[in-house]
Amino acid sequence: MSKTQKIPEPTIERLALYSRPLETLLETSVDVISSEKLAQICDVNPAQVRKDLAFFGEFGVRGVGYNVRELLKAIKEILGSYRVWILGIVGMGNLGKALIGNDNFKKRNYRFAAAFDSDPLRVGQKLACGLIVKPVEDIEKSVHALGIEIGIVCSHGAEAQRAASLLMDAGVKAILNFAPAQVRAPKCCMVENVDFSVKLENLAYHLAKIS
Amino acid sequence: MSKTQKIPEPTIERLALYSRPLETLLETSVDVISSEKLAQICDVNPAQVRKDLAFFGEFGVRGVGYNVRELLKAIKEILGSYRVWILGIVGMGNLGKALIGNDNFKKRNYRFAAAFDSDPLRVGQKLACGLIVKPVEDIEKSVHALGIEIGIVCSHGAEAQRAASLLMDAGVKAILNFAPAQVRAPKCCMVENVDFSVKLENLAYHLAKIS
Repeated sequence: MSKTQKIPEPTIERLALYSRPLETLLETSVDVISSEKLAQICDVNPAQVRKDLAFFGEFGVRGVGYNVRELLKAIKEILGSYRVWILGIVGMGNLGKALIGNDNFKKRNYRFAAAFDSDPLRVGQKLACGLIVKPVEDIEKSVHALGIEIGIVCSHGAEAQRAASLLMDAGVKAILNFAPAQVRAPKCCMVENVDFSVKLENLAYHLAKIS
Repeated sequence: MSKTQKIPEPTIERLALYSRPLETLLETSVDVISSEKLAQICDVNPAQVRKDLAFFGEFGVRGVGYNVRELLKAIKEILGSYRVWILGIVGMGNLGKALIGNDNFKKRNYRFAAAFDSDPLRVGQKLACGLIVKPVEDIEKSVHALGIEIGIVCSHGAEAQRAASLLMDAGVKAILNFAPAQVRAPKCCMVENVDFSVKLENLAYHLAKIS
């Protein structure tokens, strides 16, 4: 694979998607998968799968398929999934608690190093994972002390920008925002906004068409 | 706007995204927005915004921008957002509780009519929204009685397929799956899988490149 080749953004997102069933296949000792099968599992066009995987060179054997282990290894290398990433999370309501306990995060080397909340009633609570909820005033200190690299924001709407700003001011360069409010960031930082209702509207659109 | 014109899938997803800041603008009495500004808020290329909105005909006035109210109305009509959608949710752990209380759902006419869980310890619990958690065995009956149209699955991995199948067998045609397991569905049904760690891997990929 060529390290210098620029991989388009949507391909990156789909690579993460492809890696999910590949992990399952590897666990169940499946050695080879066809692009058609992988496409079907991931709900993507087979031509798209072949195009995306072409960025990684010769993993496919025509008429047979892709070597599962090799392909997964290449995808993980590209995505940086072999490295442990240190996370800090702000907002320890139901969503925050759900995220900190999410198996997908653990399985993929994302480690929560600290949890914060602005609510004095939540500060000091011991979470199921063992962490003690800290006040948001501790964000700067904790980011430096624990080497937090990615911030997860699941505060209430109005609090989200403050939480994100505290993280970014402390040097965090990437924020995953679950709050129902867009979070703005300086050019040096990246924010991914997650809004569940966007997916829901997509389903509703298609339902309305068929009903 | 032409009702017969086929709108591409990624455009549909972006329309929901565009509608978020448009709602805020309308609330704050902003009448007009330029494609550049809307693009900036939504983190999308301005040319992409113009291309997407071109599906809706003449809302843009060259050199001025789009009429916020008209544009939002057209997007909501396309997405079916004026209609109330009835939801049923399976899996009342932290994530289920977070979703049922999500303001974005309420604000967009998504109404939770029932909540289910397979855990006898959770069945019978009264939720903050007033619903009582029902056993999964009640799914079929409830789907018919309450007219549930969209199912939300946030059960544990192994339980997710069962939950989704119970919903689909009862006639639910669309599933939003938050469980860390892909859910398979017959051709007549739609499943959107939400995996938070995909977004995280995307951030990690970009972080690895700049660090």
